[in-house]
Amino acid sequence: MRRITLDQANQIIVAAFAKGAELNLKPLSVAVLDAGGHLLAFQRQDGASTLRAAIATGKAAGALALGISSRRIGEMAAERPSFIASLGPISPHGIVPAAGGVIVAGDDGAPIGAVGITGDTSDNDELCALAGIAAAGLTPQN
Amino acid sequence: MRRITLDQANQIIVAAFAKGAELNLKPLSVAVLDAGGHLLAFQRQDGASTLRAAIATGKAAGALALGISSRRIGEMAAERPSFIASLGPISPHGIVPAAGGVIVAGDDGAPIGAVGITGDTSDNDELCALAGIAAAGLTPQN
Amino acid sequence: MRRITLDQANQIIVAAFAKGAELNLKPLSVAVLDAGGHLLAFQRQDGASTLRAAIATGKAAGALALGISSRRIGEMAAERPSFIASLGPISPHGIVPAAGGVIVAGDDGAPIGAVGITGDTSDNDELCALAGIAAAGLTPQN
Amino acid sequence: MRRITLDQANQIIVAAFAKGAELNLKPLSVAVLDAGGHLLAFQRQDGASTLRAAIATGKAAGALALGISSRRIGEMAAERPSFIASLGPISPHGIVPAAGGVIVAGDDGAPIGAVGITGDTSDNDELCALAGIAAAGLTPQN
Repeated sequence: MRRITLDQANQIIVAAFAKGAELNLKPLSVAVLDAGGHLLAFQRQDGASTLRAAIATGKAAGALALGISSRRIGEMAAERPSFIASLGPISPHGIVPAAGGVIVAGDDGAPIGAVGITGDTSDNDELCALAGIAAAGLTPQN
Repeated sequence: MRRITLDQANQIIVAAFAKGAELNLKPLSVAVLDAGGHLLAFQRQDGASTLRAAIATGKAAGALALGISSRRIGEMAAERPSFIASLGPISPHGIVPAAGGVIVAGDDGAPIGAVGITGDTSDNDELCALAGIAAAGLTPQN
Repeated sequence: MRRITLDQANQIIVAAFAKGAELNLKPLSVAVLDAGGHLLAFQRQDGASTLRAAIATGKAAGALALGISSRRIGEMAAERPSFIASLGPISPHGIVPAAGGVIVAGDDGAPIGAVGITGDTSDNDELCALAGIAAAGLTPQN
Repeated sequence: MRRITLDQANQIIVAAFAKGAELNLKPLSVAVLDAGGHLLAFQRQDGASTLRAAIATGKAAGALALGISSRRIGEMAAERPSFIASLGPISPHGIVPAAGGVIVAGDDGAPIGAVGITGDTSDNDELCALAGIAAAGLTPQN
């Protein structure tokens, strides 16, 4: 597994939405990025607000930028708020420090992309990201 | 018809890709935006280069920004290059002056969104955008 | 070959500088980027002016953004100046339309990175990029 | 000593990596800037994440921007977070308020450049910067 295909990206989104429906969550927005942080696929459910593409992308791109999940970036932001805040302006898609951005690992453990979800609580957003990654037969980075 | 639903956005993308396959085009990237220029759905076919999300979005957002197709923006750019160039830095997603960005009109004629496609020639990109809009039962702005 | 290692990036730079010395060129600046357009290594020879990191990066990043060499982007810019100019503001490192930015292809033909050189004529810059890529045992994209 | 040569910049990077290996640190990224904040040399070790060039540069450029080390900028950020946060968007390479960015002083005490390192803890990043500067026969600004 060297990269996420478009078919896999679409599977991730469909499965993430299915998880959201199962949990009766608010409208979700899901971005799937390649290893370099460039968008492969995105969908925003009806009723979601206007910044959702940027937030979903900023969770996933931030994870790739620092090599850790956006949940862990959120924890870093609690300890070192000025450091994390300083990275937003120098990161092409920003750094959104809240759970829901998960790196996808390739067969050698290196990142092959990332998934970012926003719309419900950050914990629920992350649950849906993990469900989507699993449904596509892919592996989240620990 | 007052807005593009996610189902319609996905139909647009599927039909645009089908048109691309029928015409044997290069890998395409398709963005569907709401009336405010915010992304509803996006897909990038395998093998497309990294800036394609930005280019597809920039065609569609530029069309909405000026109220005309990106083909007509391209014609304006030929006549008034400095004017069109000046708009890129002040438009959130840029203004890409090449065919392939088409406004979708609602039943009262006002824009309800736009489609932007990049990957092949601009003329072919636009053909696929029009095919996608028609397949979703929607109407391009004249 | 799935990615450019730091050792290979350094080999590219050393060999590019050797080619520049052999041809008695002006001070060169060489950037090596990964497939996502993120810097792996950079060196600027003594006497080069201040924007050289940005220019070298902009040639390489532009090539990856569009999937073609910066020489071909320069040719596109001659035919479609407004289109190429519109991409600068929406590309994280800009798009520099002049020879000297060359994509490196992996064993499956997909990009694994790019080299960008500036300092002498664009033709000479490109010669040095190709020399560097060959010296590292890598393959430029046709 | 009026400026950092490319040879010295490369020595700084090699010695910083040696210090990182000695201390068994995570993959490091090292940027060396001239007095104007423009990149002279950069290397990112294999396995480092994508934003590392920007972070290393942002530590070094921030130090030069304010005339103090990025460690002291971090201390200022703890006391005056809004002030430091306001500088990021108006600084070409941002201001990263965490240890690891060290100014190099010339023989008259004025800055001749700066080193920025990221990858491990900020304290370790700074240790490697100081080791690199010393190995090149240069002097950190007190």
